[in-house]
Amino acid sequence: MQQIDRTTLLLDESICRANIRRMATKAKQSGARFRPHFKTHQSLKIGEWFREEGVEAITVSSVAMAEYFSALWRDITIAIPLNVLEIPRINQIDPACKINVCVMSTNALSRLQTELQREVGVWIKIDVGYHRTGLQPGDDEIRRIVEWLGAHGQASKMRLLGFLAHAGQSYAATSADAIRAIDAEARSILENVREQHADAVDDLHISLGDTPSCSIVDNFQGVDELRPGNFVFYDLMQYTSGVCRLIDIALAMACPVIARHSDKLVVHGGSAHFSKDCIRGNDRDDCYGWVVDKRSSDITHGWNAADTELRLTSLSQEHGTITGPNEQLDRYDIGDYVLVLPVHSCLTGCSMKVYRTLTGEYLDHL
Amino acid sequence: MQQIDRTTLLLDESICRANIRRMATKAKQSGARFRPHFKTHQSLKIGEWFREEGVEAITVSSVAMAEYFSALWRDITIAIPLNVLEIPRINQIDPACKINVCVMSTNALSRLQTELQREVGVWIKIDVGYHRTGLQPGDDEIRRIVEWLGAHGQASKMRLLGFLAHAGQSYAATSADAIRAIDAEARSILENVREQHADAVDDLHISLGDTPSCSIVDNFQGVDELRPGNFVFYDLMQYTSGVCRLIDIALAMACPVIARHSDKLVVHGGSAHFSKDCIRGNDRDDCYGWVVDKRSSDITHGWNAADTELRLTSLSQEHGTITGPNEQLDRYDIGDYVLVLPVHSCLTGCSMKVYRTLTGEYLDHL
Repeated sequence: MQQIDRTTLLLDESICRANIRRMATKAKQSGARFRPHFKTHQSLKIGEWFREEGVEAITVSSVAMAEYFSALWRDITIAIPLNVLEIPRINQIDPACKINVCVMSTNALSRLQTELQREVGVWIKIDVGYHRTGLQPGDDEIRRIVEWLGAHGQASKMRLLGFLAHAGQSYAATSADAIRAIDAEARSILENVREQHADAVDDLHISLGDTPSCSIVDNFQGVDELRPGNFVFYDLMQYTSGVCRLIDIALAMACPVIARHSDKLVVHGGSAHFSKDCIRGNDRDDCYGWVVDKRSSDITHGWNAADTELRLTSLSQEHGTITGPNEQLDRYDIGDYVLVLPVHSCLTGCSMKVYRTLTGEYLDHL
Repeated sequence: MQQIDRTTLLLDESICRANIRRMATKAKQSGARFRPHFKTHQSLKIGEWFREEGVEAITVSSVAMAEYFSALWRDITIAIPLNVLEIPRINQIDPACKINVCVMSTNALSRLQTELQREVGVWIKIDVGYHRTGLQPGDDEIRRIVEWLGAHGQASKMRLLGFLAHAGQSYAATSADAIRAIDAEARSILENVREQHADAVDDLHISLGDTPSCSIVDNFQGVDELRPGNFVFYDLMQYTSGVCRLIDIALAMACPVIARHSDKLVVHGGSAHFSKDCIRGNDRDDCYGWVVDKRSSDITHGWNAADTELRLTSLSQEHGTITGPNEQLDRYDIGDYVLVLPVHSCLTGCSMKVYRTLTGEYLDHL
């Protein structure tokens, strides 16, 4: 097995598979379709671990990801408001792969009507309180979209699926109860919207499910579809929000030590590797990652998720600075590497573009 | 020419070439060797534009970059403290390509002595006030390194080149005078260190030069080598620090508009594209990019660097939110794209991994 000699994003497959299994089981018990968001891992290989848990439909957030996953998947929702400039690219995706898009205006439908050369499912994106995007529940445009799709009926290549939302405000929630309240409100909003349009169209579905809600809430009865993504790896953001345990974090960055100063280590591992998301502390107390100990000198045994007091406290493009108690810093010198749990696993994956399992296998990332 | 249909990092070649030419001319006039840092662009193709200005030696900040550029370059300094785990990889680089490394300890020299199978030049990294890494100017380890290299003499594959520093504190400076003072102090520190060791070794060089200093200071007489990097593209960080003009920023991200709300646009362009560096404003006033207008509907004419009041004010992985005066927001709707000047061009390049010139050519990124 190749030695770890450079900045390397390590993936503990057993943690990752346990995260997938736990969420798949929860969705099944709620009777909801599990349509995991693949923007977190963006890996065909990791995708196969979901398939082994019975997953058949997935979520992505760009046409590029839909293209990538259409090699192996037959049912993909692109859960970002449709970029109408990419309709020609959507037309090129293998017709054997179902594609669903999100719309927020009859303008978008008109563009689809003119340019579509394949069938697509259509979700209407609703704002359930995150206020990033989505139609307000009372917006007349919802009715216009429903009527437009009804009026075009068989002449259209579009089929209305229902109402889709992302309660992303749950990421800022500071307690489990707050997350439960956010989820309850989101569901209630979507159910009301569906109720309002039940006369016009039968069998409209509701789709939601961010990682904090899906991790904290136990029962999703009444929800047709759950789309969490981050849970596949989790990260320090989720841990510090109480959403996962430290032992559920499936990624750690191996960062070679390149300098030992009296009060810190400098490692090769910077914002080019971790991205720049941080857990903001008090003044000068920002944290970009936590150091964990290897279980043994052999990395195949993984890391010990018991927290050390060593923190990644500053980043430049390639350099990272590790600070903490001297007796813990003293365990390392040049020639070693430290293992760092990332703050935001999605962006860390995007930055690194490849995963290495503990057994030395390299896994793809779009 | 392919239409812009997705999030695309645009490069204005004429701005970029002018930035390169200006810096090459300044270095030449100062009699300093220009060894530009290629970590900003990481592109073989853009590297060739430097060669056309007479550049023959380059700087990088990882062994991976050295491997990449060794395909076309014959003199590369890896300006980050040596990761001794990568000595075997350094051995594999084409022997026709000179490689220089940075060391901060005799430990690192011992590892090199044992494992090196090729010749390398050695810089001693000095802290000139940034306090990220580097030996303090008075640290005895400097003398030990100089003596170690002297004692091993011909038996060693290493040749001491001199003292190298990065005055990165200039990035936080708030005035041109402050930048000049930082540069003057950095030079003075390096000159003193050289003076102290002039008896032991002849012809030691000093190497420094961050983008703020190299842009603001006019004369680098006495400096042997200049290594700025960011200037190739510049960015909003440099503009807001007074280091460049808005018309010197060579990159803009084309972001398709995916939603028009009453008070904002939502675009496909998020932290996966821009990374997460921001210009911090007052409360809730963080800015991740500035919108500029296209010169015409034909992108080959580039953008008008006159500032609009539209700002990229929040980012999630794939979504960006543009806010500003309604009459400016009204210029856009779904089906359009906005052009956004990035806050930090280095990380934006790392995130996108490819550039598109205004004439539709795609340029490589490591």
